[in-house]
Amino acid sequence: MYELGVVYRNIQRADRETADGLAKLGASTVHEAMGRVGLLKPYMRPIYAGAQVSGTAVTVLLQPGDNWMLHVVAEQIQPGDIVVAACTADNTDGFFGDLLATSFQARGARALVIDAGVRDVRTLTEMGFPVWSRAISSKGTVKATLGSVNIPVVCAGALVHPGDVIVADDDGVVCVPAALAKKTLDAATAREANEGEKRAKLASGVLGLDMYKMREPLAKAGLRYID
Amino acid sequence: MYELGVVYRNIQRADRETADGLAKLGASTVHEAMGRVGLLKPYMRPIYAGAQVSGTAVTVLLQPGDNWMLHVVAEQIQPGDIVVAACTADNTDGFFGDLLATSFQARGARALVIDAGVRDVRTLTEMGFPVWSRAISSKGTVKATLGSVNIPVVCAGALVHPGDVIVADDDGVVCVPAALAKKTLDAATAREANEGEKRAKLASGVLGLDMYKMREPLAKAGLRYID
Amino acid sequence: MYELGVVYRNIQRADRETADGLAKLGASTVHEAMGRVGLLKPYMRPIYAGAQVSGTAVTVLLQPGDNWMLHVVAEQIQPGDIVVAACTADNTDGFFGDLLATSFQARGARALVIDAGVRDVRTLTEMGFPVWSRAISSKGTVKATLGSVNIPVVCAGALVHPGDVIVADDDGVVCVPAALAKKTLDAATAREANEGEKRAKLASGVLGLDMYKMREPLAKAGLRYID
Amino acid sequence: MYELGVVYRNIQRADRETADGLAKLGASTVHEAMGRVGLLKPYMRPIYAGAQVSGTAVTVLLQPGDNWMLHVVAEQIQPGDIVVAACTADNTDGFFGDLLATSFQARGARALVIDAGVRDVRTLTEMGFPVWSRAISSKGTVKATLGSVNIPVVCAGALVHPGDVIVADDDGVVCVPAALAKKTLDAATAREANEGEKRAKLASGVLGLDMYKMREPLAKAGLRYID
Amino acid sequence: MYELGVVYRNIQRADRETADGLAKLGASTVHEAMGRVGLLKPYMRPIYAGAQVSGTAVTVLLQPGDNWMLHVVAEQIQPGDIVVAACTADNTDGFFGDLLATSFQARGARALVIDAGVRDVRTLTEMGFPVWSRAISSKGTVKATLGSVNIPVVCAGALVHPGDVIVADDDGVVCVPAALAKKTLDAATAREANEGEKRAKLASGVLGLDMYKMREPLAKAGLRYID
Amino acid sequence: MYELGVVYRNIQRADRETADGLAKLGASTVHEAMGRVGLLKPYMRPIYAGAQVSGTAVTVLLQPGDNWMLHVVAEQIQPGDIVVAACTADNTDGFFGDLLATSFQARGARALVIDAGVRDVRTLTEMGFPVWSRAISSKGTVKATLGSVNIPVVCAGALVHPGDVIVADDDGVVCVPAALAKKTLDAATAREANEGEKRAKLASGVLGLDMYKMREPLAKAGLRYID
Repeated sequence: MYELGVVYRNIQRADRETADGLAKLGASTVHEAMGRVGLLKPYMRPIYAGAQVSGTAVTVLLQPGDNWMLHVVAEQIQPGDIVVAACTADNTDGFFGDLLATSFQARGARALVIDAGVRDVRTLTEMGFPVWSRAISSKGTVKATLGSVNIPVVCAGALVHPGDVIVADDDGVVCVPAALAKKTLDAATAREANEGEKRAKLASGVLGLDMYKMREPLAKAGLRYID
Repeated sequence: MYELGVVYRNIQRADRETADGLAKLGASTVHEAMGRVGLLKPYMRPIYAGAQVSGTAVTVLLQPGDNWMLHVVAEQIQPGDIVVAACTADNTDGFFGDLLATSFQARGARALVIDAGVRDVRTLTEMGFPVWSRAISSKGTVKATLGSVNIPVVCAGALVHPGDVIVADDDGVVCVPAALAKKTLDAATAREANEGEKRAKLASGVLGLDMYKMREPLAKAGLRYID
Repeated sequence: MYELGVVYRNIQRADRETADGLAKLGASTVHEAMGRVGLLKPYMRPIYAGAQVSGTAVTVLLQPGDNWMLHVVAEQIQPGDIVVAACTADNTDGFFGDLLATSFQARGARALVIDAGVRDVRTLTEMGFPVWSRAISSKGTVKATLGSVNIPVVCAGALVHPGDVIVADDDGVVCVPAALAKKTLDAATAREANEGEKRAKLASGVLGLDMYKMREPLAKAGLRYID
Repeated sequence: MYELGVVYRNIQRADRETADGLAKLGASTVHEAMGRVGLLKPYMRPIYAGAQVSGTAVTVLLQPGDNWMLHVVAEQIQPGDIVVAACTADNTDGFFGDLLATSFQARGARALVIDAGVRDVRTLTEMGFPVWSRAISSKGTVKATLGSVNIPVVCAGALVHPGDVIVADDDGVVCVPAALAKKTLDAATAREANEGEKRAKLASGVLGLDMYKMREPLAKAGLRYID
Repeated sequence: MYELGVVYRNIQRADRETADGLAKLGASTVHEAMGRVGLLKPYMRPIYAGAQVSGTAVTVLLQPGDNWMLHVVAEQIQPGDIVVAACTADNTDGFFGDLLATSFQARGARALVIDAGVRDVRTLTEMGFPVWSRAISSKGTVKATLGSVNIPVVCAGALVHPGDVIVADDDGVVCVPAALAKKTLDAATAREANEGEKRAKLASGVLGLDMYKMREPLAKAGLRYID
Repeated sequence: MYELGVVYRNIQRADRETADGLAKLGASTVHEAMGRVGLLKPYMRPIYAGAQVSGTAVTVLLQPGDNWMLHVVAEQIQPGDIVVAACTADNTDGFFGDLLATSFQARGARALVIDAGVRDVRTLTEMGFPVWSRAISSKGTVKATLGSVNIPVVCAGALVHPGDVIVADDDGVVCVPAALAKKTLDAATAREANEGEKRAKLASGVLGLDMYKMREPLAKAGLRYID
């Protein structure tokens, strides 16, 4: 259950170098390397195309229609963090705009991942502050009810602990638990390593059927070719 | 992150009497008593009206279109349990039908809460085995890929640990952490205690405006009456 | 634009007899008689099957997650009214339960139509207090922000003025402007009048093709029969 | 592509006895027996619980908001048929009500499956005329544009040819191609045959793990038990 | 209720200078300045990013799948207008394409806001004619049934009167009643005035917590910091 | 019903020149020329704006969460083909990424149309390999279950036979049956022919009301102008 009205100031962030290293691998490769768990639901979409980031999660639990805790979480941001915002109910209001983005950016945040709405998306795009959200909406919010900061949250169906690594790009958002970050980085890097070779083969016309030796298992599974 | 391919056999269930006592209070009152957290998303609907249950959670993580782990979890059921099934991706297939229900019922399960689809709903209704699900579908599933049993899962947006108390009725499904079950039972019972009196007053025509002394705060907030 | 923080106490209700007379005709016939306008979106569903009502609208504009104004509107209810609740944002919280229903019923309300969620649906069903809503949810609400009572509202896509007639049954909810209520009642009654005769003909095997003389216009439109 | 403005009068219906025999097996068992194909999307829901039917399909392609062709199809109904209605665009209007149902029933139709909306659901329920639809709506339709009757249609994602067998119950709707009806009946009957024995075993406490000999494949797949 | 088959030729447009002045403030600031009412639902999305407009509303009520009235409304357009199109039922057809856009643009329209679908979006983008819609679809429409022009309409959940001011950008679409346009412009301008200063402070690292003096109310609300 | 586990190697492709000629006309014009049938549902969206293609369909039926058959279909691709992928159940997983795209492109495929999810969208965009899909998702798939290649499939609600012509652009995706391709090309070209003239007239301020001679039919339908 969620603990309301608390801010945890000391969190154990994943190793910085590891967290930073995951960005270039991208959400899809990292998700594969994790064994296909940790993905936020695909309704989480970037407000502009092309951003690809990783960072350590500071988490915030919001109340619907109330962005008070986004101001509270701002103070907890350290350079290299990504703010992960969950909400106690489905909500598409615009919790976050250019002023908060200015503040987050000044604190060193790399991105916001929010299971709710955002606004001022043109300015955010100009600022180069990437956001993954479930909606875009002009509707503002009040500042009246407490949530919490740096507690474990469920964001878009995924459990995120403060300090976990977040990897996000045009494909979506993945959460890598801090304890698994190094292992995941290694596995993802290994996956990536022979992609170039594979790509070259496929580009030359070699079929995946042959490259991956699928013909036999397909035949075994009963695949029939009809002329 | 989810650990795949494991079955935890020894879980710490919430106190039986407490878990049982929450049923009669219902999901809405329990949710209030918890401070309005712990609710599964409202797309979770009962397959038939009128069931009202509580029990201790045994959890299972399923792979989409694959119900293998429901057979594995069956063995871990103890009388008074409610099976809580999450899935690694959104899926509406019919993972559960009358045969599994017969087995679950024989093991003492009181209900199934599943963030996916079920089938044989007419027979389940006749059997009196209540299910809360996101969908009803004839589409069956395979038995090919491992998930896990009795790990913490995110089910319909709520984090559920094995041993937590589940309360479900026509209004929805709530998860009460085992550690908070007693406190929640007390708070919910207290809420319920003076409901009868309130209901009598309201039935006699007394207004909530007066009973709850709202006129002054409403006026303070600026409410104006216009004739 | 919505005016916030006001309660209009004196509204012009549609003629009582007319308002009452529309119930037995049902939402579909009334909607036809109106020229197919005035229907609330079909996501508005009854919490139990079989209720069929009409009444004069008292309207309330709610803020998301806040049911304060439902207590305010209760005082404005007169016997024969139906409360129509709109919300300034999409919201599925449970704004309304058995206590408010007791109060509404005591004031003479016949039903609630709410573009949001409700709870305690089992008790509401036992009480025989019908509700049409967009959702059912245990999630309670706060009492913190003003909306308005008896202003024109947009509820589930339909514009409803206080005093309009609401007709609701298993097929959905229709709003009949007060000024058109009598005319609509007459038109709907006329439609209904020869339904019995039509039904008898169709039951005897006469085809709509012949009864409605459709063969010629169909041929003219180019319909071809192929043996 | 759809051919518009045509009515095929002579269709090859699946064998009557076979078509009738599939009803008692139900949609889920039949869907399994078919190899898990042929299912209409699970948003197709019965307007009342408990109906379980099978019959031969007469198909109709409708234009959005226009039920003219439902009158045309009525004439093509033979006893034992189920009308399957597709629409050229997503539409939730109420295309079908009690008058058409009276006519369909008089012609011997057993049910309607419509990828659109219906109305008069209370009367349809009283008449015992089952309908599976994507929506319920009071909104009526015009009679202005041609569709077709007894052409192959895509209904709720499934391809249905005139004469195919439709099986529908609380779990959903399945289409069995006429040519496969006998084979499917046999396979479904065989599946059903040993369900009773299985159910008895499971009811006595035998686990699916043992009954289906799953322990070894689970171990092979790497399942670990942790005490 | 909607009046069908009428075109109001003389509407009272909001003051031109005021209407024009709202564009640069944007939908989110204007929505705030209005007290958070008047917003169209956030499913209304621009067909291309970056457009930011305001103008006076000419309204049109469409029938589903029928764009006849868009030709009728074209004649009522005056330079500086934005066409606001509602539909009597949910519909995603492509009502509007490059030919109509050419006509609208020639008449001086600045944009289209339509609670339905549009097509030819690549050409519209090249023409620089912005559209906010609920869908993009190739599906064309007929010209067969009357709606109305310049009556009050409900568009994407918001009530729009002819002559109101529409403000639209990447964040969404807001309707400002003509009578409130000047007051809203002033309020929005005032809001905007000190945004630059705030932004500078936040960019320098000052926290919203301090700038907005939130620490005390947060503490009062019970916020606890845990090290 | 779908035949599973088969690959048809010899399909009759629509005439190449005809298939190629449809691209420049675009999905909306082609859809009109077909009589408004053959459109895939509008949830099918391009992963990047601006692509406009046509080609001959090679079809593939996928199992949910399983992209094995995409490797099988790759071998069947000939230059000028577009792969059309349907799935036996609603699924948003990322079935297709940059490696498969490399292979498809090497085989001469012009695009992928898939009623499921894709990933690596940034790389696909850089490669200029257009995809129309229902979702974008990092979630990978397994290679375990057979579907089929080059059987008729229902993709996003439209029936597609192998060899049909697919036309896709920013407006959506249309399927033109091979037998109708020439006739459709002619009809679409004819439609397009006088568009330039119409556009010029409309740009000069001529109203559609006059150009299409709508004033009389509108008056006949009862349209009233009110000053």
